[in-house]
Amino acid sequence: MKIKVVKDILGANDQIAQKNRQLFDSHNVFVVNVMASPGAGKTSLILETIRRLKGRVKVGVIEGDISSSLDAEAIGKEGVPVVQINTGGECHLDANMTASALGDLPLDKIGLLFIENVGNLVCPAEFRIGEDLRILVASTPEGDDKPYKYPLMFHETDVVLINKIDLLPHLKFNVDAFTKAIRGINKKAKIFPVSCTTGQGIDDWVGWLETRVKG
Amino acid sequence: MKIKVVKDILGANDQIAQKNRQLFDSHNVFVVNVMASPGAGKTSLILETIRRLKGRVKVGVIEGDISSSLDAEAIGKEGVPVVQINTGGECHLDANMTASALGDLPLDKIGLLFIENVGNLVCPAEFRIGEDLRILVASTPEGDDKPYKYPLMFHETDVVLINKIDLLPHLKFNVDAFTKAIRGINKKAKIFPVSCTTGQGIDDWVGWLETRVKG
Repeated sequence: MKIKVVKDILGANDQIAQKNRQLFDSHNVFVVNVMASPGAGKTSLILETIRRLKGRVKVGVIEGDISSSLDAEAIGKEGVPVVQINTGGECHLDANMTASALGDLPLDKIGLLFIENVGNLVCPAEFRIGEDLRILVASTPEGDDKPYKYPLMFHETDVVLINKIDLLPHLKFNVDAFTKAIRGINKKAKIFPVSCTTGQGIDDWVGWLETRVKG
Repeated sequence: MKIKVVKDILGANDQIAQKNRQLFDSHNVFVVNVMASPGAGKTSLILETIRRLKGRVKVGVIEGDISSSLDAEAIGKEGVPVVQINTGGECHLDANMTASALGDLPLDKIGLLFIENVGNLVCPAEFRIGEDLRILVASTPEGDDKPYKYPLMFHETDVVLINKIDLLPHLKFNVDAFTKAIRGINKKAKIFPVSCTTGQGIDDWVGWLETRVKG
């Protein structure tokens, strides 16, 4: 019974995700679904990326949170269009919630849309929202065993950004062990070690992303 | 329709949680539900607590993970009874999953049972499992804005352990701002700043817990 309900929900979700996808295509918008644990650095990564793309790519942002508009306010200061979705308890964004925000964005003036998901390494992986690219911000203080514990998320993502590498001298995190664990689940994902605090590695990520947006 | 389904699930869950509670009471087991984001330090906190209670309180552990038995193996090395629950995709433990593990534990030989929930700051807060105490391990690298973003979790917990305080010199985390944010949602929760790496603050937490177990 339970499985049936979940399947129905996912089937309905995929239909709406396809409609979102058609809308994005008709406006030439490249869409990135940003997923991570709470506090891994999703907003910081979006901010650093916006700053480096300024003048070259027009960015818009949808912020998904259970509550508050703190992240949308931070993004708004960069002068880009931003919409906050408060899920009111839901632990992930779905295609319908995403669709409800699109009317408030000037899609014709956006080339790259970041959609920041709710902080959660589980449920966001199950719901497509019409994105071109799924990225996972993995934070070094969370430990290098996370791919074993949250395999679906690491399997479904197209990119893993290993964030907070500035903290490595203070942690037991082993980058090689982490990379090996990712590769056991996902052979194709691009992996970028970065620090949003020091800026290390961000140019590599942004350079690669720009080729995808314009490709 | 959707709300109804969720209400039904929660109602059924509470009934099973009460049965778990009766079973725990009949065996004089004090039960702690350990909640946190992925990688905040739940297992490390349980390990440090077990080591300090050795010879005084008999501890048992249920490990909840979507996948893998890494944490149960780490706990098992301490020589305490441990059972792993793999949720197979579910983002939280519920009362029924918890009940299914209890037959594999020697409840008559356990005075304190830790139940480590799935790493998630959202859904575990909605499901009672029959516990006496709910504790939240909040990790400093996640940032001091988390109570605003995950208010239900911070509202529902009895204890907040501010973990990884050894990293504070390298972070922007403001302990006073974080405490103020918690107090805006939860006036009563006990707050313990700790580091499972250096041991700082752990004795305070364990001393308080022991009075609760024996009280």
